[in-house]
Amino acid sequence: MTSSTAAATATSAVGEPLPHTQSCIYLDYNATTPVFPEVADEMLPMLQKFGNPSSSHAFGRPCKDVVDVARARVAAMVGASPAEICFTSCGSESDTWAVWGTVMSARQRHGPGITPHVVSSCIEHPAIIECLSMLAKQSLLTFTLVPVSAEGLVSIDDVARAMQPETVLLTFMHSNNEVGSLLSVAELARLAHQHGALMHCDAAQSLGKVAVDVEALGVDLLTIVGHKFGGPKGVAALYVRQGVQLERLLCGGGQESGRRAGTESVVLLAGLGKAAELVTRELPATAAHMVALRDSLQQQLLAGLPPGVAQVNGPADDAMRLPNTLSIGIKGISAAALLAELSEQLAASAGAACHSSCDHGVSGVLQAMAVPTEHAVGTLRLSVGRHTTQRDVDRASTLILDYVARQAA
Amino acid sequence: MTSSTAAATATSAVGEPLPHTQSCIYLDYNATTPVFPEVADEMLPMLQKFGNPSSSHAFGRPCKDVVDVARARVAAMVGASPAEICFTSCGSESDTWAVWGTVMSARQRHGPGITPHVVSSCIEHPAIIECLSMLAKQSLLTFTLVPVSAEGLVSIDDVARAMQPETVLLTFMHSNNEVGSLLSVAELARLAHQHGALMHCDAAQSLGKVAVDVEALGVDLLTIVGHKFGGPKGVAALYVRQGVQLERLLCGGGQESGRRAGTESVVLLAGLGKAAELVTRELPATAAHMVALRDSLQQQLLAGLPPGVAQVNGPADDAMRLPNTLSIGIKGISAAALLAELSEQLAASAGAACHSSCDHGVSGVLQAMAVPTEHAVGTLRLSVGRHTTQRDVDRASTLILDYVARQAA
Repeated sequence: MTSSTAAATATSAVGEPLPHTQSCIYLDYNATTPVFPEVADEMLPMLQKFGNPSSSHAFGRPCKDVVDVARARVAAMVGASPAEICFTSCGSESDTWAVWGTVMSARQRHGPGITPHVVSSCIEHPAIIECLSMLAKQSLLTFTLVPVSAEGLVSIDDVARAMQPETVLLTFMHSNNEVGSLLSVAELARLAHQHGALMHCDAAQSLGKVAVDVEALGVDLLTIVGHKFGGPKGVAALYVRQGVQLERLLCGGGQESGRRAGTESVVLLAGLGKAAELVTRELPATAAHMVALRDSLQQQLLAGLPPGVAQVNGPADDAMRLPNTLSIGIKGISAAALLAELSEQLAASAGAACHSSCDHGVSGVLQAMAVPTEHAVGTLRLSVGRHTTQRDVDRASTLILDYVARQAA
Repeated sequence: MTSSTAAATATSAVGEPLPHTQSCIYLDYNATTPVFPEVADEMLPMLQKFGNPSSSHAFGRPCKDVVDVARARVAAMVGASPAEICFTSCGSESDTWAVWGTVMSARQRHGPGITPHVVSSCIEHPAIIECLSMLAKQSLLTFTLVPVSAEGLVSIDDVARAMQPETVLLTFMHSNNEVGSLLSVAELARLAHQHGALMHCDAAQSLGKVAVDVEALGVDLLTIVGHKFGGPKGVAALYVRQGVQLERLLCGGGQESGRRAGTESVVLLAGLGKAAELVTRELPATAAHMVALRDSLQQQLLAGLPPGVAQVNGPADDAMRLPNTLSIGIKGISAAALLAELSEQLAASAGAACHSSCDHGVSGVLQAMAVPTEHAVGTLRLSVGRHTTQRDVDRASTLILDYVARQAA
């Protein structure tokens, strides 16, 4: 537990348990994180600072200042300039806007006679895949989803083969939410630019876990989701590289420099900004804390099960996997049944939850990776985070191993 | 002040001053309201209840319950059933979705060969007018904006004349945000249905001020915005009548019965639900309180200025005007200059703020009403609310009258 201890001394809060997560172990950080205590502290006073940031009077101005601070903090987290950060309401909105905006801007440039084409992968979040399907149904775009390897990785050659003269956008996630595989975004961005296309990356699952820098990645658009790194739900952002033409999705008032209408939620933005600031400050400590606990959990589960019963899904190379994510398939059990039985003691997800449809809605991330059905049905997604403790993972592995033993008995 | 007193005894909070609005008089309720104290109280504990409502474990389930309660409360406020309420992030999103969803569903029914047509008015919120312009630029719809009278009202005959065989949607606001004119929504809905079109109504500015009932109005879609009636910013809703086909705007996860993706912001929804519950419970008291203070303000200003100098914008018939809104044009002053000078003492808006473009971006609500330029430039929008006091309006009229006297001197 060296790295965990190191993290806990580097900053007081990493590794500290939260009082309200003591009755049930929370290993579902990839679904949503707690609102970190420092973030809640920053939000509370904003319940009284209620002005409309667009108003120039005494109530509006301080709210505008809060929005500006949040923008600078989010920009710093990803290496962008503040003017390149547009706030949105959720990751789905950021993803939809990236696709819609690129396609509509292309239609304006080329006229409605040319149908824009988009390349993405089989394991993207439904916000991407369903948006592509919906706009394709309206004849507003065509798209190609490239397959993934058994490790959940995308081959650059497959993507290169999918390119068409009408390709205007590549959209690939930074890391997969179920198995934690890290995609080669920088390489994909170079390919996109060679073909005159834009590169969008949904980094929802990576921020706060691994370094994400828009310059290093070379992306044009990046989805940022606060509630995956300690911020509140209901607020997110889209990084839009300076100079990129992106038609608006939500029109109306002049908020977000005219790019996204809607009165800003100052209370949420205060929280998002603080969460981003924590990421910038704590990432090495948090990542070390995560990897130590995730590895401990993985070792305990693998050691406690007979050889061949458990299989870790995702990249074999740990450098290609998120530090906090363990997707583990256990033969002979149903993950859904396990989670239902333990629902008051252990909060986690079933990795086989097929919410990412690839072929005609029957295939999810694990199916796309050709994980054998028995392992897919028994797959648990266990995700740790800033406030997970060694005691949490010890108790969780005991609970899981006891459950598996009862099924085998 | 009989009605004010009645309101204050009916429920303790209507008419009570808020401590944080004492240094500057807040008469800008139409821009945004304070988060009402009861609403903030309901939001606070949700900063710790952080689960994802889609998760079935001990953290997710209580959050789903909060979302369900909020949905029932918002439904009750407008006479809808809970299944007809879809949560969104802001009024602009609700408005955009209403237009986009109707038009895309029509394209699917009729094929892309027929371009859907929409009828709206010159004084709609920019969320409607700019969305229509943007989608028209993409050749996805055509639209007609009908004019308004000098009182800010729409003629049903003008709308009837604007109908085309391809008209799929009428979208009209319930009340105008600048001058408070109340449109004949029920009559417009009947006209829409006679032509097989849907009726959308943006009720952002009316809720919490006048009764809004989807059955009485006969609307198919209704925009609901929490931060105009004491809820937090960043959350809103769209009422979608059962059976209405509406293509999704934000695709992705299965939230909102598959109609609007995005992890729910439980903290905001708790607040929105509470604010809706207050509207349902307090509307008569709040409206009486508003009209008493608004009328007092209007009388003080008119009595304090020489005849002919001031002109109230909007319907002469008070029954056709929001109870809380006073749009008053004062000859010889610049409202923007007044507000800048008094910005630490009085929070209000300049009615001439041209954010609703009608003809080539040069005309706003007051221009559409043919208000003489001198009055438009000197127009203040003063809007009172639940926590405004008689002292507030007395001080505000003194400040305004003193300013006008200084300009004349």
